[in-house]
Amino acid sequence: MSNTVFSPFETVKFEGPSSDNALAYRYYDADRVVLGKPLKEHLRFAVAYWHSLAMTASDPFGGPTIHRPWNEPGDPIAQAKVKADAAFELFRVLDLPFYCFHDADMAPAAPTLAETLKNFHIMADYLGEKMSGSKTKLLWGTANLFSHPRFMAGASTNPDPDVFRWSAATVKHCMDVTKQLGGSNYVLWGGREGYETLLNTDMKHELEQMGRFLSLVVEYKHKIGFDGQILIEPKPKEPTSHQYDFDTATVFGFLKKYGLEKEVRVNLEANHATLAGHSFEHEIATAGALGILGSLDINRGDALLGWDTDQFPNDLWTMTMSMYHVIKAGGLGKGGCNFDAKVRRQSFTAEDMIHAHVGGADLCARAFLTAAKLIEDGKYDALLTERYAGWQTPEAKSLLDGSTSLDQIAARAEAEAIDPQPRSGKQEQIENLLMRSIYTDNV
Amino acid sequence: MSNTVFSPFETVKFEGPSSDNALAYRYYDADRVVLGKPLKEHLRFAVAYWHSLAMTASDPFGGPTIHRPWNEPGDPIAQAKVKADAAFELFRVLDLPFYCFHDADMAPAAPTLAETLKNFHIMADYLGEKMSGSKTKLLWGTANLFSHPRFMAGASTNPDPDVFRWSAATVKHCMDVTKQLGGSNYVLWGGREGYETLLNTDMKHELEQMGRFLSLVVEYKHKIGFDGQILIEPKPKEPTSHQYDFDTATVFGFLKKYGLEKEVRVNLEANHATLAGHSFEHEIATAGALGILGSLDINRGDALLGWDTDQFPNDLWTMTMSMYHVIKAGGLGKGGCNFDAKVRRQSFTAEDMIHAHVGGADLCARAFLTAAKLIEDGKYDALLTERYAGWQTPEAKSLLDGSTSLDQIAARAEAEAIDPQPRSGKQEQIENLLMRSIYTDNV
Amino acid sequence: MSNTVFSPFETVKFEGPSSDNALAYRYYDADRVVLGKPLKEHLRFAVAYWHSLAMTASDPFGGPTIHRPWNEPGDPIAQAKVKADAAFELFRVLDLPFYCFHDADMAPAAPTLAETLKNFHIMADYLGEKMSGSKTKLLWGTANLFSHPRFMAGASTNPDPDVFRWSAATVKHCMDVTKQLGGSNYVLWGGREGYETLLNTDMKHELEQMGRFLSLVVEYKHKIGFDGQILIEPKPKEPTSHQYDFDTATVFGFLKKYGLEKEVRVNLEANHATLAGHSFEHEIATAGALGILGSLDINRGDALLGWDTDQFPNDLWTMTMSMYHVIKAGGLGKGGCNFDAKVRRQSFTAEDMIHAHVGGADLCARAFLTAAKLIEDGKYDALLTERYAGWQTPEAKSLLDGSTSLDQIAARAEAEAIDPQPRSGKQEQIENLLMRSIYTDNV
Amino acid sequence: MSNTVFSPFETVKFEGPSSDNALAYRYYDADRVVLGKPLKEHLRFAVAYWHSLAMTASDPFGGPTIHRPWNEPGDPIAQAKVKADAAFELFRVLDLPFYCFHDADMAPAAPTLAETLKNFHIMADYLGEKMSGSKTKLLWGTANLFSHPRFMAGASTNPDPDVFRWSAATVKHCMDVTKQLGGSNYVLWGGREGYETLLNTDMKHELEQMGRFLSLVVEYKHKIGFDGQILIEPKPKEPTSHQYDFDTATVFGFLKKYGLEKEVRVNLEANHATLAGHSFEHEIATAGALGILGSLDINRGDALLGWDTDQFPNDLWTMTMSMYHVIKAGGLGKGGCNFDAKVRRQSFTAEDMIHAHVGGADLCARAFLTAAKLIEDGKYDALLTERYAGWQTPEAKSLLDGSTSLDQIAARAEAEAIDPQPRSGKQEQIENLLMRSIYTDNV
Repeated sequence: MSNTVFSPFETVKFEGPSSDNALAYRYYDADRVVLGKPLKEHLRFAVAYWHSLAMTASDPFGGPTIHRPWNEPGDPIAQAKVKADAAFELFRVLDLPFYCFHDADMAPAAPTLAETLKNFHIMADYLGEKMSGSKTKLLWGTANLFSHPRFMAGASTNPDPDVFRWSAATVKHCMDVTKQLGGSNYVLWGGREGYETLLNTDMKHELEQMGRFLSLVVEYKHKIGFDGQILIEPKPKEPTSHQYDFDTATVFGFLKKYGLEKEVRVNLEANHATLAGHSFEHEIATAGALGILGSLDINRGDALLGWDTDQFPNDLWTMTMSMYHVIKAGGLGKGGCNFDAKVRRQSFTAEDMIHAHVGGADLCARAFLTAAKLIEDGKYDALLTERYAGWQTPEAKSLLDGSTSLDQIAARAEAEAIDPQPRSGKQEQIENLLMRSIYTDNV
Repeated sequence: MSNTVFSPFETVKFEGPSSDNALAYRYYDADRVVLGKPLKEHLRFAVAYWHSLAMTASDPFGGPTIHRPWNEPGDPIAQAKVKADAAFELFRVLDLPFYCFHDADMAPAAPTLAETLKNFHIMADYLGEKMSGSKTKLLWGTANLFSHPRFMAGASTNPDPDVFRWSAATVKHCMDVTKQLGGSNYVLWGGREGYETLLNTDMKHELEQMGRFLSLVVEYKHKIGFDGQILIEPKPKEPTSHQYDFDTATVFGFLKKYGLEKEVRVNLEANHATLAGHSFEHEIATAGALGILGSLDINRGDALLGWDTDQFPNDLWTMTMSMYHVIKAGGLGKGGCNFDAKVRRQSFTAEDMIHAHVGGADLCARAFLTAAKLIEDGKYDALLTERYAGWQTPEAKSLLDGSTSLDQIAARAEAEAIDPQPRSGKQEQIENLLMRSIYTDNV
Repeated sequence: MSNTVFSPFETVKFEGPSSDNALAYRYYDADRVVLGKPLKEHLRFAVAYWHSLAMTASDPFGGPTIHRPWNEPGDPIAQAKVKADAAFELFRVLDLPFYCFHDADMAPAAPTLAETLKNFHIMADYLGEKMSGSKTKLLWGTANLFSHPRFMAGASTNPDPDVFRWSAATVKHCMDVTKQLGGSNYVLWGGREGYETLLNTDMKHELEQMGRFLSLVVEYKHKIGFDGQILIEPKPKEPTSHQYDFDTATVFGFLKKYGLEKEVRVNLEANHATLAGHSFEHEIATAGALGILGSLDINRGDALLGWDTDQFPNDLWTMTMSMYHVIKAGGLGKGGCNFDAKVRRQSFTAEDMIHAHVGGADLCARAFLTAAKLIEDGKYDALLTERYAGWQTPEAKSLLDGSTSLDQIAARAEAEAIDPQPRSGKQEQIENLLMRSIYTDNV
Repeated sequence: MSNTVFSPFETVKFEGPSSDNALAYRYYDADRVVLGKPLKEHLRFAVAYWHSLAMTASDPFGGPTIHRPWNEPGDPIAQAKVKADAAFELFRVLDLPFYCFHDADMAPAAPTLAETLKNFHIMADYLGEKMSGSKTKLLWGTANLFSHPRFMAGASTNPDPDVFRWSAATVKHCMDVTKQLGGSNYVLWGGREGYETLLNTDMKHELEQMGRFLSLVVEYKHKIGFDGQILIEPKPKEPTSHQYDFDTATVFGFLKKYGLEKEVRVNLEANHATLAGHSFEHEIATAGALGILGSLDINRGDALLGWDTDQFPNDLWTMTMSMYHVIKAGGLGKGGCNFDAKVRRQSFTAEDMIHAHVGGADLCARAFLTAAKLIEDGKYDALLTERYAGWQTPEAKSLLDGSTSLDQIAARAEAEAIDPQPRSGKQEQIENLLMRSIYTDNV
């Protein structure tokens, strides 16, 4: 076993709610069976290579505070391997079943496309070796098409077609590697697919570029027989002023326009939801309603800050209702819960990194257990069913099934002199019920 | 001519930029021909019956400050006619070519559906009479399906199917009246089509209800041979916590889902755009790119306030770029510019109402004239054309036309060792060019 | 006992966490002693006359949904007494120790100042009678100087000095009545003390008006021997675009300017805090640090909505940390926890009103119990103490005590070649500790 | 003359509004006398060393796009001199009268305090030499106490007193150098004087630290006879979650608490104002009303983005009203207009940098000229004077002068049966007047 910053830590174990060990799981009992299968198969937790291994905690007003050995000067490939060794040590410590990566996190960029791709494949093989000695699998791979200056005006939506081509080449190899490593999904986050200012942008042309790019990806998936999901990760803005994949509803319209709504799903992130003006549970419920829920990026934003803080989650209410909507949508399938979250800039120690994941995993696990109880108990669902019960009559169904026209409905409403009466929406009663269900540790 | 609060005012005339008459148009020269037709046919200004006649300027913390004779106690129909007389006096004073109404603005509600509809038709006939003696036409009609308590949980999306039926009956008659009065468009704003809390909401069922409702409307339009446009007005929230027609992109996805994207367009409002996190010009450009630009609601929000302030516009930059994107999208066609704007609570005099419209019309007119000059002059467009010039080569076109696969693009990019070089986005240069173009009164 | 809408409900009792009665207190055990005194004396819960009795649940887009008998046409004083009877029935049901009022909630306005004041005193006497037969006391009184159109441009800050005078007369009587009824505090919320637009505002003059008004209030308090606290309630905006009492820090500066920082404290509202860009606990901690914490308005906003939603609280984390800072600041003293919260527009039944308060009181009680445990347990505080431990050395103290100059400090730092080393801020560890403490029902 | 990236550009000249040279001033006619002195003395424009020389245009999602020779590897002092040479070339090109710096922009950091300070003095001497051959003066100096990891938990507010000491030493030298170079002001921006999370913060202690630190600075100013102004630059957040110097009103309260309100003024930045929920003109008017207006940081934010975009200004309305309030407050005195603005990430060329400043200077100049005309013309001020005219009577004055008590005012108001009548706030009329004044290039 390599000697890394994470090596001194023992593997985190489930010890139950009464444990007084800060580095133990209290709720994440991986093998506990709920709703018919083990918790770990519902949640499919993943560690994010970028935030957990590559991040240095600089911000727009200050430099790095996290200094890891693999960021010291040295041979790029050798250092990337040191980083990979540390990654697998972290996976061991956390005992979570998956990880996720961008090409740029795990392999060093080089001046030319050829060398960059070569580095990437060297490191892909190395990760493959590491995985063969580990139980951690790949939840998804993705390409970083936003950090390098060549992407400053977009990747597939760049005014320069050569950047589109560079992006295509990169994604092709990234899909190959994701397949090679047994990934369950391939994700596209269009970090600069949008505009810094509309003033210099031909939006219609850029949307066309992006539509074709996604079609290329889907066609290639089928060509190589990759059986994972293709996922788009919506975000409304940052670093751009406007990102084309604004939110779930926007992505759905985009997929419909290019006939890809059966081929592509969404990878939803909590902080991206709130930046778009939505709750996390709203985005999940919307994706569920539209049939495109794919996977989750677990984190939280700060409602009082206007940027992507990517904090580890601590809001039990939101997470419980999010998990409720996940279950209602049929679960995450090949997706999972990826900790796309970063420790704060002052939390620079290796121990901080472990605390952060332990807290996050426990919060999600407890939220899932509570959501499952809510559903099994049925009282909450019964309130909803009762609220919409009027729609179960034949007459009501005829309003929706296409059999009646507007003037027929009008004529009948007038003839019957309908006079619908108000009914309480019972929001406070429901909130009280949920408070009692969510804020108990009897899960 | 009736004696109304607006009667003392003379008809506002175009007097040019150097006029020192506060109640004159300086830029809105209705018959000035630009881009091949008179300004009035480009802009198709409309006065909003609700804000300009029905509003009393109460707010959540205070009561009415606007007291008009027609709001005094009296016979409802008689008072509605007094209001209508004042409306046509206001139209005369402002000399704008169109108006817009909700059923509830111009006819009094009554306890039953039948009586409510009867009142509506009485007033529709009365408005028809008024129109025959006026040059003001109807830009659009719409139904108020949000103010009455029966709509508190939505109209078409209500958990109670009887509210859906009431809404259907209302819209049927409202479409009939819009056709009767020669309206160019019929608008649906789903003020409560959304949720107050997701906790008591079956979103999937409600979206299905809303989808069927819209289809009913479109089918009925064809049945009665109404040749106006059907328009949806997006808004993200308020009074709801979430409105399903969040923004243009969301509406597009909804239309695609129900196969209505050729049948329905959007009526875009500036303040709704900003509440959704978009600029007005963004929403217009998006609708243009998606082929669903219909009409505009002219107003402005306050970027520092989180609610719909519906102020009269005064931001020349935003309005100019908005008009630029209107022209680029092919103009407003049957749509127009409706002043969905209200005077401030302290601006309770009749004179304030006239000042507000004069300022708004002049701002839009000047913005349109400047946008037309920008386009005719061509310097700005040339910068954009040059930026995307790379996409004109056959090789670049092959990236988008479906003839090349991801791996072919990748192979060729690798073989050619492409190395795209950064090019300036020139944002500041473009902003300077636009400042010089927009902030000059030489239009 | 009067027959009111609240009469059918039994008094809500403490039944503990395991109760399955929705209308029972689970955590609010009024007589439970914690930190040396009963919970009810720490929290001093109050029912707000306006939201709970006067509100009709209209919003800017829709009319009333709450119809109470006392809002029907009738003799104003008689109806005000019906309302008062219902109020005391509601207080009986909820069994909370206090209430709060505005003059305008409990007495009908009249066309003249004299009649308005007369009505007010009639109702004050009537409330006094009701109180003599009830255990509910008055937490605070206040004057509504924002709803009537005369206040549209402000009360004490109005451009018209007669409005200043009207306001002064009203506040004088409102203070008299608050004293008469044994109120513990007198509150000023400057709902329109600010501006709708800076464009028509002489801010300097208005601030001077407001400063003098507050001094008048403080002088009068002493003159009549009112021994309650004078409180200012900060809010950043709404209905105004800018309210002068923006937040705690702003109010502090204002008090200092007029030498009133020992005389006046703040009444902090959760939703006002978030509208100002602060958390509730931030405002409480700030008031604690500045020595001006007075009382709390309990509610919550919606982080995704930009207006004052005034919802009943359900966020246990925020409320617990808020109560923690209350305790750290020395408690609420003569202040209390007033439910300045309103049921949702669809929650129009009397039962909804009771559920709302029960849930709110329980959340606050549980939050307080947890905060007390946090403090008694000491682990959390120990982390803070340790973080600042460096400041306990004599050398460090000399940096703050005025004994050392900038150049002396510099010289010594240079001489010692200091090189401060990074220490983890441990945010995630602390959050995990707090999650374990807050999200357990073992209180 | 050194050969730098800015050397190829000719000095930008005033050519008037009709010029077709993109790199000319159209409104910034430095010597034009308005309101009794030359424009350059009113505006006192400054170039910011950090944004214009040190910035590389990286953002949280991508690396540098601006590559300047002085950022290449090399001897730190030698490279800092190359940068300084380029800076003075840029000053020559722009022909603006001032510049501003942080210690860290112009001198390289070193591992120890002693070496860091040594580097700083070497470079201070070098800048002194450059200045002797240039007409550009120093508007203000400041210390960067936020970028280095040692400041991650604050500078003067750090939990570690050694960081307070380091900061004190740095500021001492930075004040010395500012004096040495003839600076007109010394600025403190507390970029990390606040908290990342309240959870690990002792706010009261930190405020005390900050208060003492500011007193140390003021005392040292007097000790060394520095006759410039001490300025605090408010910002509400970013990089922190909360910055103690939130806005002007907060700073005023802080100054009052430490008795420094006559010693310290504010340096106001447009983007910081909007992040705090205020308009730029609001902050200027507030500082004017409180007597603490010091200097301006010229830039703009994006109302749809939640972070500090620091763009060059292009909103003529806001800038004109800002300049109006500057003039009303008596002008900027020793302060000035510092371009604390950065080119967009895609605007990486030297030419972009020049365009940006030219556009910004011209916008400010035009805004000032229009504001001066507004004041000289007097129509706008007359509207305000008329609005508050009622306060000129002896009776009204007695309300404010301390001569009358609350009960006396009440008694008299009742006796006179006052009944104040509504008056229009005329917002739309005023906006129309301002639109006509601002959007004309006849300045």
